[in-house]
Amino acid sequence: MLQKGCMYCDEVCAHRDSLMIKICDFNLGTLYLFRDQKNLGRCILAAKEHYTDITEMTPEVLHEFWDEVVTVANAVHRAFNPDKINYASYADTVKHLHIHIVPKYIGGPNWNGPFSDADPKFLSDEEYAKIIETFKKELGK
Amino acid sequence: MLQKGCMYCDEVCAHRDSLMIKICDFNLGTLYLFRDQKNLGRCILAAKEHYTDITEMTPEVLHEFWDEVVTVANAVHRAFNPDKINYASYADTVKHLHIHIVPKYIGGPNWNGPFSDADPKFLSDEEYAKIIETFKKELGK
Repeated sequence: MLQKGCMYCDEVCAHRDSLMIKICDFNLGTLYLFRDQKNLGRCILAAKEHYTDITEMTPEVLHEFWDEVVTVANAVHRAFNPDKINYASYADTVKHLHIHIVPKYIGGPNWNGPFSDADPKFLSDEEYAKIIETFKKELGK
Repeated sequence: MLQKGCMYCDEVCAHRDSLMIKICDFNLGTLYLFRDQKNLGRCILAAKEHYTDITEMTPEVLHEFWDEVVTVANAVHRAFNPDKINYASYADTVKHLHIHIVPKYIGGPNWNGPFSDADPKFLSDEEYAKIIETFKKELGK
């Protein structure tokens, strides 16, 4: 089920576009590159359906969705070689289930603390395109 | 595999005890009540084995571990009726995989923002015991 007015459900959403760029689709999730790239490789896997919590998923959907998160994380490890990856689902008001996949680097932003949206690092369109190509190559997309 | 000196692997760890209280065991995870209860029902499901990332788990282990997270989350929904649950895995330096399960309440701490360890709310031993009993009852433990 989709929910009209939800930034992840709506096909066109300027607010979503201001925050992220679509990389590719999986079966259950859509992968977006987060525009703030101070953590190189930061991305979001959003469920295509409008789940508000993992407790709403059937076991089969839960398992396949986390398989997709792992597929993305493996691509991030190969492409960017972070020292750790953080995963988080917040969405108190956005509601629509999405997982922040945030590479962390020793000495880099928020190392040894929760990742943050403060002090964003925005890139040029060409730089975003290059990172997206890297993801697609690693994911075979 | 366990790793000596890891706060989640060591059987006895004063630092771990200062942060959390064991609630119960699952097959793959150990559930702890977080001592900072400003988000009522906040807990941690730590893998028993020393995984540093979900990418190290076999699909079978990944699936069962997330089934356990969902079991805990359903118990939190029933027991505390939060408006949302946040889930996060950080552990840049602790390394050992553990999921923060953080109930959020409209108008409560960090609503519509990432949960935080600032301004902790510690309870009495009796209050912790009562919450742990609630968890055990909901989990059939």
